[in-house]
Amino acid sequence: MNGQNTALLTDLYQLTMMQAYRREGMSDTATFELFVRKLPPNRNFLVAAGLEQLIEYLENFKFSEEECEWLSTLADFTPEFIAYLSSLRFTGDVHALPEGSVFFQNEPIVRVTAPISEAQIVETRLINIIQLQSMIASKAVRAVLEAPGKLLVDFGLRRAHGAEAGLMAARAAYLAGFDGTSNVFAGKLFDIPIYGTMAHSYIMAHDDEAEAFERFAESLPNNVLLLIDTYDTLKSAQKVVALAARLAAKNIAVKGVRLDSGDLVELAKGVRSILDDGGLSECTIFASGDLDEHELSRMLEAGAPIDGFGVGTRLTTSQDMPYLNCAYKLQEYAGRPRRKRSKGKENWPGRKQVYRCYGDDGHMLHDVIAEETEPRAEGEPLLRQVMAQGKRIGAQETLSVMRERLRGQLQQLPPTLKAIGEARAYPVLISEGLQRLVERMDSEGL
Amino acid sequence: MNGQNTALLTDLYQLTMMQAYRREGMSDTATFELFVRKLPPNRNFLVAAGLEQLIEYLENFKFSEEECEWLSTLADFTPEFIAYLSSLRFTGDVHALPEGSVFFQNEPIVRVTAPISEAQIVETRLINIIQLQSMIASKAVRAVLEAPGKLLVDFGLRRAHGAEAGLMAARAAYLAGFDGTSNVFAGKLFDIPIYGTMAHSYIMAHDDEAEAFERFAESLPNNVLLLIDTYDTLKSAQKVVALAARLAAKNIAVKGVRLDSGDLVELAKGVRSILDDGGLSECTIFASGDLDEHELSRMLEAGAPIDGFGVGTRLTTSQDMPYLNCAYKLQEYAGRPRRKRSKGKENWPGRKQVYRCYGDDGHMLHDVIAEETEPRAEGEPLLRQVMAQGKRIGAQETLSVMRERLRGQLQQLPPTLKAIGEARAYPVLISEGLQRLVERMDSEGL
Repeated sequence: MNGQNTALLTDLYQLTMMQAYRREGMSDTATFELFVRKLPPNRNFLVAAGLEQLIEYLENFKFSEEECEWLSTLADFTPEFIAYLSSLRFTGDVHALPEGSVFFQNEPIVRVTAPISEAQIVETRLINIIQLQSMIASKAVRAVLEAPGKLLVDFGLRRAHGAEAGLMAARAAYLAGFDGTSNVFAGKLFDIPIYGTMAHSYIMAHDDEAEAFERFAESLPNNVLLLIDTYDTLKSAQKVVALAARLAAKNIAVKGVRLDSGDLVELAKGVRSILDDGGLSECTIFASGDLDEHELSRMLEAGAPIDGFGVGTRLTTSQDMPYLNCAYKLQEYAGRPRRKRSKGKENWPGRKQVYRCYGDDGHMLHDVIAEETEPRAEGEPLLRQVMAQGKRIGAQETLSVMRERLRGQLQQLPPTLKAIGEARAYPVLISEGLQRLVERMDSEGL
Repeated sequence: MNGQNTALLTDLYQLTMMQAYRREGMSDTATFELFVRKLPPNRNFLVAAGLEQLIEYLENFKFSEEECEWLSTLADFTPEFIAYLSSLRFTGDVHALPEGSVFFQNEPIVRVTAPISEAQIVETRLINIIQLQSMIASKAVRAVLEAPGKLLVDFGLRRAHGAEAGLMAARAAYLAGFDGTSNVFAGKLFDIPIYGTMAHSYIMAHDDEAEAFERFAESLPNNVLLLIDTYDTLKSAQKVVALAARLAAKNIAVKGVRLDSGDLVELAKGVRSILDDGGLSECTIFASGDLDEHELSRMLEAGAPIDGFGVGTRLTTSQDMPYLNCAYKLQEYAGRPRRKRSKGKENWPGRKQVYRCYGDDGHMLHDVIAEETEPRAEGEPLLRQVMAQGKRIGAQETLSVMRERLRGQLQQLPPTLKAIGEARAYPVLISEGLQRLVERMDSEGL
């Protein structure tokens, strides 16, 4: 993430507003909350992710000297304001859902409490960081739920929207339960298992497919996974059987084959039978090519004997819904709740907490969005403080802790919400206190 | 882009293939081409973009010492191979469509000719760089064509897929004819005009909307653009009229107002009439909020008196088609053309050039994909050499040159292709030489 965390990654209006706040002497404490206004179609729940990158961003927030010089060349800003920017750091408190938490519409997932200028200037990059990974984790978990026990690998880097998107998608997919990624740099940055074998070009560069397979096996004897759809998949599977006998003499086993085109269900059945007949029942079948949770579901229901899937473009771009309808809104300033009333964009004012209630069977019953200070008897509070006065609280969480958290929450999720089709919405209730607050603000015209 | 250009931004299989090539002594010259297999629905043409970032990546391609050490901890690689990686640079030739060029399905837009390992290892990031900007430029140009004479500003950073996506989308949108971006860092990196005023939070942090407007105007007297939809848009427009009189005494003019919610057509008409009646006919109306080319078209056809648009999420994520169906394929190795036959993914073999033919009226008639060495009498060759032996040829192009190129090509484009609806496909012909080559390869079973 180095080099990408400059404070200049923001919208110009954040700076023009800040200058106005400075001029007006408005420096009281503000609370902003990030939430998703409504769930996209085809998502019965969402998964929070990206908090670690947000904390890194906030801890390192600053404008460099060179950046301040550049800003001073823009017409809009006064020297006093530029001087202020040059020493600006983020000193606020942050509460958030831990990564790997399930969440729903209108629930605050990140809450920032800081002097208004600081809470405001971080808006753009804060949304940018949290939306991407939460969107990908929420997409990836659907494939995880549809293909239990199958090996799932992120293949998306090439079609991701830039380098950071590819890296963060690999992280978010792993957090959601994928087994690994093809992305080497993501493997290094996040200690995620890395997978990969060969492309069609490797086969095509050789004059003979069987020869290509054999040379590859000799080069990578512990990881022989052969791509068999370059010319004729079934014939190629027969070549694999013949090759396996020769390789066995060298103590090399063919671990698996990969299919990347054609009717994957029928081809997998044909290949499975050729491999089994050839004594290669241990050799796995891995499939890739335009896959998503719907395709996985369809193929597995059709009885495709496929052991693992490479999921790329449709995951990494969250193809059916490439953004979340999220907003980061001012909820309180100088101790007073605030409420936007723009049509269709009204929001619940004040500093809030989310409580989750469970039934006797351990399944989630409903969530309640409440005022932070509202006395409540029941429910598990979901937002935790993760930064105080600009510094991280506690130790950095590992990805495996986040994976475990999500795995546990999936067991608590009402089973109907795990379907890939649209389920009846999970109840998100508004507390009495919050409802009274809105009535009072409306009646007072606030 | 610093920090994001490590050679580790690749798929693991590129490295496993390379090691096999090394072991086999396969180091002959290969040619790979990047092309889009078919146009997405709702795109009658595409716009090439991202070449500048690709050249930077290729010129700086290397594995650092620390990265090589890390790679050596993975089980798959031999010390000899790691030593080779540590001195690896990209030494190949690159031909490409200049940025801002219109292109169509199957046309090579980048052609890499290099020792096979070099041409292979750069695949992942090459696609990643070119697809993103070409996809965004191809989306943005549709808004440009639908809103001639209107101010168009990219607002997408917050919902972009990470930082790089936001930066490159700002660049690609500007290249496609947008007037600027709200993205401050993109403004600095690419010298793109930056736009911005205020968010709802600024209004909400004040106890009184009119007071917020006045304070803002005093802080930014040369750029008074007021957001008027936080509470009641029409009432707010009346406050702007009242305020304008007071500001006039201080020699401050209200330049414009922004609408971000509600029925933008009706509100714009109402606001225009209030402003005009109040003597503010020079004050412009700017609209934002879930916009794309279809909304722009609809609003302008409905007579909305809107002078400019902020286009965010749907542009930056290319919401209706968040990827291009692109591929980077081996076309020639060791002097011999190569052809993949995977079902539905067959491609045209050999090293190729694209020729564009024009009618007497100056409009494009058709393109022809031909062998590079095929003698041809007619048409303008589109691919130009941009790198030789790993180094850039000629000077870096400016964004304004690219904008002008696209503007010129839009004038040559058959007018039907400029519609946002689906038009009859532009003819992309395959040369006789290429057809003969494929027949020969098929008959020889190559």
